[in-house]
Amino acid sequence: MNVLEKVVTLNELRKARNELPEPVGLVPTMGFLHEGHLSLVKRACEQSASVVVSIFVNPTQFAPTDDLDAYPRDLERDAALLQEAGAKLLWVPTPEVMYPPDFQTWVDVEKISQPLEGEKRPGHFRGVTTVVTKLFNAVQPQKAFFGQKDAQQAAVIRQMVRDLNMSVEIVTQPIVRERDGLAMSSRNTYLNPAERQAALVLSKSLAAAESAYEAGERDAQSIRKIMEDIINAEPLARLEYVSCADFETLEELEIISNKALLSMAVYIGRTRLIDNCVLG
Amino acid sequence: MNVLEKVVTLNELRKARNELPEPVGLVPTMGFLHEGHLSLVKRACEQSASVVVSIFVNPTQFAPTDDLDAYPRDLERDAALLQEAGAKLLWVPTPEVMYPPDFQTWVDVEKISQPLEGEKRPGHFRGVTTVVTKLFNAVQPQKAFFGQKDAQQAAVIRQMVRDLNMSVEIVTQPIVRERDGLAMSSRNTYLNPAERQAALVLSKSLAAAESAYEAGERDAQSIRKIMEDIINAEPLARLEYVSCADFETLEELEIISNKALLSMAVYIGRTRLIDNCVLG
Repeated sequence: MNVLEKVVTLNELRKARNELPEPVGLVPTMGFLHEGHLSLVKRACEQSASVVVSIFVNPTQFAPTDDLDAYPRDLERDAALLQEAGAKLLWVPTPEVMYPPDFQTWVDVEKISQPLEGEKRPGHFRGVTTVVTKLFNAVQPQKAFFGQKDAQQAAVIRQMVRDLNMSVEIVTQPIVRERDGLAMSSRNTYLNPAERQAALVLSKSLAAAESAYEAGERDAQSIRKIMEDIINAEPLARLEYVSCADFETLEELEIISNKALLSMAVYIGRTRLIDNCVLG
Repeated sequence: MNVLEKVVTLNELRKARNELPEPVGLVPTMGFLHEGHLSLVKRACEQSASVVVSIFVNPTQFAPTDDLDAYPRDLERDAALLQEAGAKLLWVPTPEVMYPPDFQTWVDVEKISQPLEGEKRPGHFRGVTTVVTKLFNAVQPQKAFFGQKDAQQAAVIRQMVRDLNMSVEIVTQPIVRERDGLAMSSRNTYLNPAERQAALVLSKSLAAAESAYEAGERDAQSIRKIMEDIINAEPLARLEYVSCADFETLEELEIISNKALLSMAVYIGRTRLIDNCVLG
């Protein structure tokens, strides 16, 4: 049976990591694991001799008004799932391990962090890129695995890796969905039954936009309108943004000519959900 | 005879670095090497199986009004000195290698970058910490060697390494001085003979302050006054700042009770020079 070692401090992590067979794959998470996370761990196990998973609900990527304190946690269940999935090492740093009292260094990716999530969640990506840099430096993985669910996050991290000469390969995995289409998210646990049903507007609007694209629609504003109309028709949904952007630069498009990212953030009741799909 | 390999691109660097015996020591420089740099290379050779030296006049740490274009360069002489000193690999990236067109990621160390050089040269340390992060990630040295001449730079880099979990040990080497006391600097080449003589006020004022400290003076303002008076008495010198600060935090002191850093920036004619010494 696979044995999962659990460490907390940086010294423990480094010591345990140095004993792992290489190449090492890292799956950074905020815990409360679902099938999406486990698909990352599975892929990492296929591509690495050892898989390290981090669980850290990173305070610096939450705004004061965000759901940091409410964010769901179940470390015992997570550890059992990871052991079963084949991970070798679980790093669960405390906030004090990650951010000691005199902490004062930040990694900022500028342009590609600005739109979409970056615009709606100021400071979010600075928190993400800083903590991911720390995870990479501590674990020194050959590959790191991120979900396509956080499409902009993956793009921001790829840019950071390129810009800072980091020697880690970023692998992204497709969104894992519930049977009815809802993208898996730890935040889905916030939804009551009516909201859970209403939350289907995200994946439905993406599906409708995708159908229109496949039928030949290339006007980005028409594609956005299709998504908006579906979301706005749902009384429990409040649209924050829909986007039809260039897949590489995340700049909003007028005409879809290359690979495009359709993405959105929608409040269902008080729960903020995101979803996306790639065209072309 | 030692053979120094020279590389330019990131791929060349990585390939050559992977063939070097470990541990690897890195000496980051801006070239136009003097005895101060060579003392770093010598120390690196003592402490590492292989020494990598980078030469890069990093545009992002110069303000538009700084001396980027005038900064002295002599790559052929530098390479000969490094070969003789025992370095194995010389990385001379071009600005395009370091900063490709879509470059957009920055490393910022906040508090300790604010005073002294950081106050007088806005953006300077952001350029330094970003390029040093890139050098560290590309070369992956076990140790990196910096001169105590740039005392705040060394402090900023130590803070960055701690904050971002970088697995490199920072080693600093004492200032190397000319016979008459002038701290070695590539910028000394800008000085005409009269200025070269006037430039002695930096080391002289530090020596006077050190004597006062050794005679029992612990009032920081009195120590600063001793340095200011000597510099202000020199017609070719224009004082930018003198500082008597805590060695760790770089906060200005009232009373010297622990280790303190005396530092200064002084224009001699149009040449900006810095110098420092440690008390206690």
